[in-house]
Amino acid sequence: MRTVEEHRAAVLALVSALPAETVELSDSLGRVLAADVVARVDLPGFDNSAMDGYAVRSADVVGATSGSPVVLDVDGDIAAGDTRSHVLRPGVAMRIMTGAPLPEGADAVVPVEDSDGGVERAALSLAAEPGRHLRRRGEDVLAGDVVLRAGSVVTPGRLALIAAANVPEVSVAARPRVAIFSSGDELVPVGHSPRHGEIVNSNGPMLAALVAGADAEVAGVGGLRDEARAVEGLVAFDRDVDLILTTGGVSMGAYDTVKEVLSATGTVEFVKVAMRPGMPQGAGVVGERQTPIITLPGNPVSSFVSFHVFVLPVLRALAGLDPEPTLVEAVAAQGWSTVEGKVEFTRVVLDAEGARPSGGQGSHMLGALADATHLAVVPADRSKIRPGDPVQLLPLVGNN
Amino acid sequence: MRTVEEHRAAVLALVSALPAETVELSDSLGRVLAADVVARVDLPGFDNSAMDGYAVRSADVVGATSGSPVVLDVDGDIAAGDTRSHVLRPGVAMRIMTGAPLPEGADAVVPVEDSDGGVERAALSLAAEPGRHLRRRGEDVLAGDVVLRAGSVVTPGRLALIAAANVPEVSVAARPRVAIFSSGDELVPVGHSPRHGEIVNSNGPMLAALVAGADAEVAGVGGLRDEARAVEGLVAFDRDVDLILTTGGVSMGAYDTVKEVLSATGTVEFVKVAMRPGMPQGAGVVGERQTPIITLPGNPVSSFVSFHVFVLPVLRALAGLDPEPTLVEAVAAQGWSTVEGKVEFTRVVLDAEGARPSGGQGSHMLGALADATHLAVVPADRSKIRPGDPVQLLPLVGNN
Repeated sequence: MRTVEEHRAAVLALVSALPAETVELSDSLGRVLAADVVARVDLPGFDNSAMDGYAVRSADVVGATSGSPVVLDVDGDIAAGDTRSHVLRPGVAMRIMTGAPLPEGADAVVPVEDSDGGVERAALSLAAEPGRHLRRRGEDVLAGDVVLRAGSVVTPGRLALIAAANVPEVSVAARPRVAIFSSGDELVPVGHSPRHGEIVNSNGPMLAALVAGADAEVAGVGGLRDEARAVEGLVAFDRDVDLILTTGGVSMGAYDTVKEVLSATGTVEFVKVAMRPGMPQGAGVVGERQTPIITLPGNPVSSFVSFHVFVLPVLRALAGLDPEPTLVEAVAAQGWSTVEGKVEFTRVVLDAEGARPSGGQGSHMLGALADATHLAVVPADRSKIRPGDPVQLLPLVGNN
Repeated sequence: MRTVEEHRAAVLALVSALPAETVELSDSLGRVLAADVVARVDLPGFDNSAMDGYAVRSADVVGATSGSPVVLDVDGDIAAGDTRSHVLRPGVAMRIMTGAPLPEGADAVVPVEDSDGGVERAALSLAAEPGRHLRRRGEDVLAGDVVLRAGSVVTPGRLALIAAANVPEVSVAARPRVAIFSSGDELVPVGHSPRHGEIVNSNGPMLAALVAGADAEVAGVGGLRDEARAVEGLVAFDRDVDLILTTGGVSMGAYDTVKEVLSATGTVEFVKVAMRPGMPQGAGVVGERQTPIITLPGNPVSSFVSFHVFVLPVLRALAGLDPEPTLVEAVAAQGWSTVEGKVEFTRVVLDAEGARPSGGQGSHMLGALADATHLAVVPADRSKIRPGDPVQLLPLVGNN
């Protein structure tokens, strides 16, 4: 029996980072930078005022207080967006707005709150020292600076920085394209009436949601009948996708056609992994293009857990990210038992008190799955979690 | 000066939850349920096997052990997806696959691992008691059960439950549509060359990313010249949007046209809020349709913080969610000073050691904003955070 780590290494060996593509900045949210972003301008781009007030020479306001203000003539206004070149003559002030360029000769700003607000003459009650209430050109970023490294995910804050750095397009990892197939003659589509022995196919919609939630693209969602010909069609599948996922047909049943047919190709390996749920797993490549395929077990909960443990790292690697998502450290708010000898992925709810199992943990229990926020990763050598024990949690995709 | 809570209450008073709409399940990811979801089928839909193995009458395997197995004739196979009605005769077994319907008369399953795997006769080495390795019809969910409550966000796990419950469409809150306007004559679009005194407009792209990251829809991103006519155009703005956001033109500058023109309408109020950054704020309604408007300050960092503090609650309320996002409890990994008398929203990075300021905290500092993962909410009566102090963190939109 493989360990979780061994099978994860095996699936990761099937893929490497996709080639980069260039996208408009407005299309880059959530994408992974494939190249460093270099600023094209200084930030700020010019010395400017941090306040609405008066641009002054600091020497002209020495000793100014509210009891004894300095009164200066006001030589006009400078608004934000003023592109003229102003010069401040000695002994006078200019009204200046937040973000407006500092006139030549000025070295400080007296905020309007420290004045009488005068338009032609102003009484200034702050002895602003040189540099006071100024933002200096380039004090945040210099043109030529690397402002973001390749591998960073574009968040709204980073997008703001890229925009301010005047970079209209960025190089990002291509978004992985994923095809999803559910196998099983017993499956009927959502909204159809299941006859005796049939069940509604929840794996297809669920995996499509997980793939989308992981910032990858769903190239198609389909079904596979439990017939050799259907699965052989999968082997011949030659659409432009980066990963194929199947569910079902991989355990020890006599009708597990996915396993039977794909085993025979010699390029897909079926194994047992020491984990619960999700023991029966398969992975390899199919078709002329040697497209990576991961075959997940058919139980919805097993399939859901397997996605997080094996597929998510593969999607992250394809997108140029560190494959391992960050685990959350927490404490157990209550105790629970697990099976020894296998890594157990307990569906838990994390709140201010800690993590607790979200309900029935059977691999067919979708009610508990719906409430869960994380998977607690319980090592194979543990069979009991006690209240207060530290636990490591894998955040669920799309649960934010 | 208003408190943050007072201004948040004022902006929330402008909106109420949008009307519901019905969407296909596959389009529901991330949406907010507007009605309870009621199961249309039992889960499981029929008694079925939890293992690949042999369906038996438990009375027929009493005393079976590996040393002394019970040998039974095998009366055929039942696969998952078999819709026929089988009857198990006394004294025989049937091969059964995981998920396959239990034949009438059987009350337990012996896993294939506890057998010799026989096809015509099988030696069974487990004395399976009644109910062993069975999943009972309806043990997870009963048809008619409310499986999800209105107000729940559709996550991949919940989508799986809705699918399994055989519900093909759900009622969800409409997605808020938001128009975004950046004001300021000094703004040039990303990729254009700023002249002296001009700056690249990062607020428009940033707010578009934040709106999208908050699961709302960007109806348009535009600019407003610092002229009364441009802003008056905004008042006449009559597109089908649920919220208008502006940035800039709201502080004490002489050229703050947004504030001047919208103040005159009598339906938009401009206030100072006791927070840093983000003190100058405005909110109200404009146009014939009385569209809610929130005017944010023009500093990118102030605008970013104000979005999280005021706009995000409004978008959540429009979508039918509790307006207040959940704060994260953490400890300070290092100390920092804040201004007293105002709530300070410090841009911080949270890692395993705790929260620390992400860099320069000036309201024009985009470099530090790009690295931040949370805003630390430092109350107005605090002026110092010490290492190890508990801090409350607001997670940044789109940073997951």
